[in-house]
Amino acid sequence: MYQFWNDSAFEVKIRDYRRDFHKYAEVKWTEFRTASIVAQRLDNLGIRTLLGEEMSVKGFQFAYPDDESRDAEIARAIRQGGDPETIEKMDGLPGAVGIIEGGKPGPVIAFRFDMDALLTTESDTLDHYPRKEGFRSVNEGYCHACGHDGHTAMGLGLAEVLMANRENLCGTVKLIFQPSEEGGGGARGIVARGILDDVKYFFAVHVGLTKLDGLPLGQHGLICGVKDLLDSRRYDFRFRGKAAHSAGDPHVGKNALLASCHASMAIHSIPPHSEGVMRLNVGVQQAGVVRNAVPADGYIQVDMRAENDVVGEYAERRVQQVVAGAAAMYENELETTLIGKTCAAASDDEAITLVRRASESVDWFTEIHDVGSAGGTDDAAEMIRRVQRNGGMASYAGLGCDFAAGFHNEAFDFDESVMIPSIRLLNRVVELAGEHARENEQ
Amino acid sequence: MYQFWNDSAFEVKIRDYRRDFHKYAEVKWTEFRTASIVAQRLDNLGIRTLLGEEMSVKGFQFAYPDDESRDAEIARAIRQGGDPETIEKMDGLPGAVGIIEGGKPGPVIAFRFDMDALLTTESDTLDHYPRKEGFRSVNEGYCHACGHDGHTAMGLGLAEVLMANRENLCGTVKLIFQPSEEGGGGARGIVARGILDDVKYFFAVHVGLTKLDGLPLGQHGLICGVKDLLDSRRYDFRFRGKAAHSAGDPHVGKNALLASCHASMAIHSIPPHSEGVMRLNVGVQQAGVVRNAVPADGYIQVDMRAENDVVGEYAERRVQQVVAGAAAMYENELETTLIGKTCAAASDDEAITLVRRASESVDWFTEIHDVGSAGGTDDAAEMIRRVQRNGGMASYAGLGCDFAAGFHNEAFDFDESVMIPSIRLLNRVVELAGEHARENEQ
Amino acid sequence: MYQFWNDSAFEVKIRDYRRDFHKYAEVKWTEFRTASIVAQRLDNLGIRTLLGEEMSVKGFQFAYPDDESRDAEIARAIRQGGDPETIEKMDGLPGAVGIIEGGKPGPVIAFRFDMDALLTTESDTLDHYPRKEGFRSVNEGYCHACGHDGHTAMGLGLAEVLMANRENLCGTVKLIFQPSEEGGGGARGIVARGILDDVKYFFAVHVGLTKLDGLPLGQHGLICGVKDLLDSRRYDFRFRGKAAHSAGDPHVGKNALLASCHASMAIHSIPPHSEGVMRLNVGVQQAGVVRNAVPADGYIQVDMRAENDVVGEYAERRVQQVVAGAAAMYENELETTLIGKTCAAASDDEAITLVRRASESVDWFTEIHDVGSAGGTDDAAEMIRRVQRNGGMASYAGLGCDFAAGFHNEAFDFDESVMIPSIRLLNRVVELAGEHARENEQ
Amino acid sequence: MYQFWNDSAFEVKIRDYRRDFHKYAEVKWTEFRTASIVAQRLDNLGIRTLLGEEMSVKGFQFAYPDDESRDAEIARAIRQGGDPETIEKMDGLPGAVGIIEGGKPGPVIAFRFDMDALLTTESDTLDHYPRKEGFRSVNEGYCHACGHDGHTAMGLGLAEVLMANRENLCGTVKLIFQPSEEGGGGARGIVARGILDDVKYFFAVHVGLTKLDGLPLGQHGLICGVKDLLDSRRYDFRFRGKAAHSAGDPHVGKNALLASCHASMAIHSIPPHSEGVMRLNVGVQQAGVVRNAVPADGYIQVDMRAENDVVGEYAERRVQQVVAGAAAMYENELETTLIGKTCAAASDDEAITLVRRASESVDWFTEIHDVGSAGGTDDAAEMIRRVQRNGGMASYAGLGCDFAAGFHNEAFDFDESVMIPSIRLLNRVVELAGEHARENEQ
Repeated sequence: MYQFWNDSAFEVKIRDYRRDFHKYAEVKWTEFRTASIVAQRLDNLGIRTLLGEEMSVKGFQFAYPDDESRDAEIARAIRQGGDPETIEKMDGLPGAVGIIEGGKPGPVIAFRFDMDALLTTESDTLDHYPRKEGFRSVNEGYCHACGHDGHTAMGLGLAEVLMANRENLCGTVKLIFQPSEEGGGGARGIVARGILDDVKYFFAVHVGLTKLDGLPLGQHGLICGVKDLLDSRRYDFRFRGKAAHSAGDPHVGKNALLASCHASMAIHSIPPHSEGVMRLNVGVQQAGVVRNAVPADGYIQVDMRAENDVVGEYAERRVQQVVAGAAAMYENELETTLIGKTCAAASDDEAITLVRRASESVDWFTEIHDVGSAGGTDDAAEMIRRVQRNGGMASYAGLGCDFAAGFHNEAFDFDESVMIPSIRLLNRVVELAGEHARENEQ
Repeated sequence: MYQFWNDSAFEVKIRDYRRDFHKYAEVKWTEFRTASIVAQRLDNLGIRTLLGEEMSVKGFQFAYPDDESRDAEIARAIRQGGDPETIEKMDGLPGAVGIIEGGKPGPVIAFRFDMDALLTTESDTLDHYPRKEGFRSVNEGYCHACGHDGHTAMGLGLAEVLMANRENLCGTVKLIFQPSEEGGGGARGIVARGILDDVKYFFAVHVGLTKLDGLPLGQHGLICGVKDLLDSRRYDFRFRGKAAHSAGDPHVGKNALLASCHASMAIHSIPPHSEGVMRLNVGVQQAGVVRNAVPADGYIQVDMRAENDVVGEYAERRVQQVVAGAAAMYENELETTLIGKTCAAASDDEAITLVRRASESVDWFTEIHDVGSAGGTDDAAEMIRRVQRNGGMASYAGLGCDFAAGFHNEAFDFDESVMIPSIRLLNRVVELAGEHARENEQ
Repeated sequence: MYQFWNDSAFEVKIRDYRRDFHKYAEVKWTEFRTASIVAQRLDNLGIRTLLGEEMSVKGFQFAYPDDESRDAEIARAIRQGGDPETIEKMDGLPGAVGIIEGGKPGPVIAFRFDMDALLTTESDTLDHYPRKEGFRSVNEGYCHACGHDGHTAMGLGLAEVLMANRENLCGTVKLIFQPSEEGGGGARGIVARGILDDVKYFFAVHVGLTKLDGLPLGQHGLICGVKDLLDSRRYDFRFRGKAAHSAGDPHVGKNALLASCHASMAIHSIPPHSEGVMRLNVGVQQAGVVRNAVPADGYIQVDMRAENDVVGEYAERRVQQVVAGAAAMYENELETTLIGKTCAAASDDEAITLVRRASESVDWFTEIHDVGSAGGTDDAAEMIRRVQRNGGMASYAGLGCDFAAGFHNEAFDFDESVMIPSIRLLNRVVELAGEHARENEQ
Repeated sequence: MYQFWNDSAFEVKIRDYRRDFHKYAEVKWTEFRTASIVAQRLDNLGIRTLLGEEMSVKGFQFAYPDDESRDAEIARAIRQGGDPETIEKMDGLPGAVGIIEGGKPGPVIAFRFDMDALLTTESDTLDHYPRKEGFRSVNEGYCHACGHDGHTAMGLGLAEVLMANRENLCGTVKLIFQPSEEGGGGARGIVARGILDDVKYFFAVHVGLTKLDGLPLGQHGLICGVKDLLDSRRYDFRFRGKAAHSAGDPHVGKNALLASCHASMAIHSIPPHSEGVMRLNVGVQQAGVVRNAVPADGYIQVDMRAENDVVGEYAERRVQQVVAGAAAMYENELETTLIGKTCAAASDDEAITLVRRASESVDWFTEIHDVGSAGGTDDAAEMIRRVQRNGGMASYAGLGCDFAAGFHNEAFDFDESVMIPSIRLLNRVVELAGEHARENEQ
């Protein structure tokens, strides 16, 4: 097999992919340019690629834009080099799933690569590396501050490596280029379409994760699998009371400001659950428009995280009761909006072991931890749970590397040198998964 | 007519009545001894007297004792000199209404005298006048700290004066010796029985009232009528949640302490009403029994005062909504108990004028104000409203005199020298009411 | 004396003044065009006019704009016909005080006319009279929705009437064209300059006031004086906490959202004061910027109204304590901003009688009430108090007339036919004030 | 060595000890009878015993009774068979430490046995075993509902077994009979006296613990060591406001009820800490005494549990800030009372291994878990921490057995057959600790 690892042209190519995606950052449900470039590249490699409703199902998205906004984003994507015909095929659902049939029998192995940027204005200081090197986001207000540009580039790299050795590849590899991981629920439609239904081995990776865990890693770390992808539920609540002049007719009003205060305070007083960690937050509260009127409108944004379904459901149920009670206290109407939802998930021990064993052949990774903490949520969890339910195994692995600022920070940037070793690691995971399947068949 | 006013024996008799009632103080729904002495005295004067269900109706009482307590009080009353036969006739409803038919035609005029003491332990200091003079309450924990002992004595005095001149009396006088003014709703049953239905002129008096009003009165003041007897509604609310170990299983609990906190805070945030003064108070809150359990019980006592029915109903409606919402927030069951209720009332201008004119013949009263503030509530209001609804007129008058400590204080005592002038005033009111009726008939 | 009352040319002139001011509406501290036109008109009439620091003092303004905004408004005022030279003299303090020395000795009598519009976008419906007649505000977002355009026009009318009869005028009349009544504290600087110091009779008027009072008036009403201009204090409070990831590091945060909730709830729980009406309101609350962070900023707008100084000071003191305590609970820094303040005031009985007597010669006013309720606040109160403190008398009168929508509503418009009768009333007030002064000197 | 394990007389003796302690249950700081019997028994066995200030230090106790109560309890203890002379030596500090010097050199090994009962009225139903067998508590309101009677009996059993084999005993064994584990902080004085300073191996046991852990154990379980004895801090807060008539003078009051509500709600809103579990609870709240007065007093009981010191100190600091802020909001004085405090602690892996190895020779224990959860707090933690700080090791072990009702329940009773196997286990622990010390010296 051709050795990509020592090929600086390959390295430059992957790096350039990443920088291109970074420069033309696209946020959730607008990754049409990114996805069309991915799809074209897979096509060029001779990989069968699913698009649009072949790979996802409508109706499972959160925070999907209105028609006008989406069409404007499609127009922008095309102006920035997206292929109109490919985008047309997506039918409003950005994303792509490449399917590589190996030359030999074996299991179905899937990888998830997410593609979306964030609603953040990228740093414009002189020392910000993307600016220095000329790939700062040209889409103002959109920024790859979570490394998904790198994930996408690695996915393309892995595709090329696997295709170069296709005849020896045991089984089938699905490369899932997922849209809208950041609050869009992009994984849900893909799961609903059944893409994961025949998958026996599933892996998702995230750059930089080890830092979050507070581990004393240098830049070359690896967490073979995290066990605490949190259940996440996000709701907005709107209280509709009645305005009145606060001095003239105070008794006529129905105070939505006080209703929202009671709700916020009571949400924070919901007791912890003995079966797992829970984190509740009212992140935003807004009520009233003028000093001398009883406020007729109140609004709160609520974030719930939980270690597992039981705790997540408890949190959701209690928050809703509390908010309904607060609205009733002040005779307010209540409007509840589900903003997003992601399940909890945990890597399997066997999958973790596979990743650890794969790391043995990649000398770049020097600090290796079997288990670490993500401290967060990722809708790869939806895929993990589907695979596990079908008897498959999964791991969500963290790729340690240096970075310039914390996730979601405007100055975020990661060390690109993590990409080639990571592709190498994933390629090796494919080999070991094939072996593992053979061993377990016997 | 015999001149009682200069008869020191009459003055001593009235004083002794008052001291006797003071010494054997009886609280709401237990005034059996007091009422039986009143009834016997009226009988001795030859006055027809209504007792028990002749004068009241069962089912309209607040805070009526259980059978065992009531029977114990009856036994005590008899031990302390109450007449068993008379008490028997009361059939559990202490009180008496004497009816004096005058020798000449005229209107029905009614006076209310209340008889109950308070649940207060009377002062036992050496300088407390009732102790010095030997008439401190022998019923420990019961104390005439609101002057009703004096009201009752004056009622008996007025009865004697009126009977002495009965042949010249124009019309009918009803002397209503009401039980249970202090939170018992004693007026309600009497109103329900119809005692006020034919009354054209109604008067109630209260000693010491002028002090409350902040008027710079000496001891000899008179307020001919107050206009602000407040609407009063008293409720208890009990929150029933669920206990749980607060460290082990916090999520299992349903926190009644927090529910009651939200309720208390929200009750105090109910906005004022533009149509009149409102006063809300959570006077007592109790929740929980042990430090490390989620509190399963919460309890609050709520007091609502309002200038009129509209505001009173608003307060009651909003308090109930707030409390129900708070219970819902924490999944608590709610138990609501009506403790008592008194309507608002105001004296009539014409009745006020009658009292002022009556005062002209009583030189004792030197500081006379037509209108003053009661700053409180009195269930004479129920009687006032009934009389007014039937086209009659009413006044609630304040009899100024020096006193030793504020109302309801354990050291309360009033200057007994107010009693004879007050009887004289009321006697004159009867004459003027008769004249007024004649003038208005023509 | 020339009879303005039957001169339709005069009526048209006053109406046109009003429509001109309406069309070029200017909000608080930007009334440069209005004031320059007033000043020029007074000058044309031969009236000595004080401008800028002659009539006011810097440092007493609330919500004064920054230099840039102010200069832009001055430029706009000049573009719209304001006289640059006159505006220059104002030195940043819009307003004008005309002083008419009468031909005969007599007291100093002052009238206040306010000139500012509101931050409201005027109605643009076809049936909105100012639009139909072509005088809808051309300054988008600024709207004379409180009738001050009419007040200013009436002031100019009164100036003309008084000057026509100057030789018979007893005493001196000061016509105070005040800026920035709507929350700007425009009266304060004028009081500080001493304009009111020699005034014996002071009057302010407001169109449409009777409607507020709920009186069953037709359109031709008059309230000779209100007694309840409320004490008003307006504060903004900003809570500065500390952000933190609400799931990752919740304990690191200092929650400004919860601090502001506690503050809002506790402000609404401040008990009423027995010495007068109080109205507290938190009209606006805003906290937090993102769902999953502990909110680092909280902000509330508080409005306090009170019947008198004692209650006003109580409200202010208690609100500040409550807010400080809430900040301390959550380790927040607190930033307090005084937005504005107006004292309470009441018309004098003698001044009210003067207005009533003046009304007798104006047949237009058919429903006359001595005393009514403003139900609000007006910084004429500052002037009233100064005059009263010096032994003078004052009245704040309401000029009843039909209007199209409530005060501060975008569709507000008043019946212009009230203006001539009102000028006639004020002219008569001047005569009666002169007579009153003479009578009281003797 | 004599085989106690098959000696039914020994078994009966231990059982009778336990039943005697159970029958004469004594609560914290009153265990004078229990301690005197223990001391006499140790003395009879020839064991040197420390009493009073030899074993503890005054000033470290929580909830110590006043002199009168304590003296009454001492009198009761003597009436019930406590030895007056021994009790005299205790000098108000119940408890005893027996010191057994072995015949051979070796380490200092200590065991803690707690002796106090609870303020609970023991079940009196016919099926309650202690009642059936005639050892129900004769001290009404005091009840051994946590098994400390058994612990004490096992301590005496272990003393006898060790003394029987003293010549072969390697090192020194300290048998610490600790008073006042239930909220009295009994361990603190013993630690302060230095009793633990030379200890290398420390063990505490608790019957029934395995049930708490939710483990599917039969009755014969063993948890070799728990790792989560929680940090516990208990405070009472009293708010002192000012009473006022809530309708007459509401503004005069300083509302302690609302202050305590804000405190309770804010305590429950203190965010979790990312470094460990925290449990906060306001278990009791009481405020106000009468419906129509502004409540002048408020009172809350707060319980704080934490996984470690960092979280415990965070909780304590934040609770105090919150409470102080709430008091300031309502101008209340604040009174803070520390009720008790226990540190967190965790068993050492090596000590856990020792207990596991010891269990191998006791066939009674069939379900053995290395680590389990106590789900609570025990002031043995203070001893564990002192031993660990000096380089020693410790384990807090759970002795599984069937029981009749949950800890602290009035019907609690445990299966006495756990006692002999437990003594056997502890005896073996002593042997293995000796061996361990020898191995580690080499």
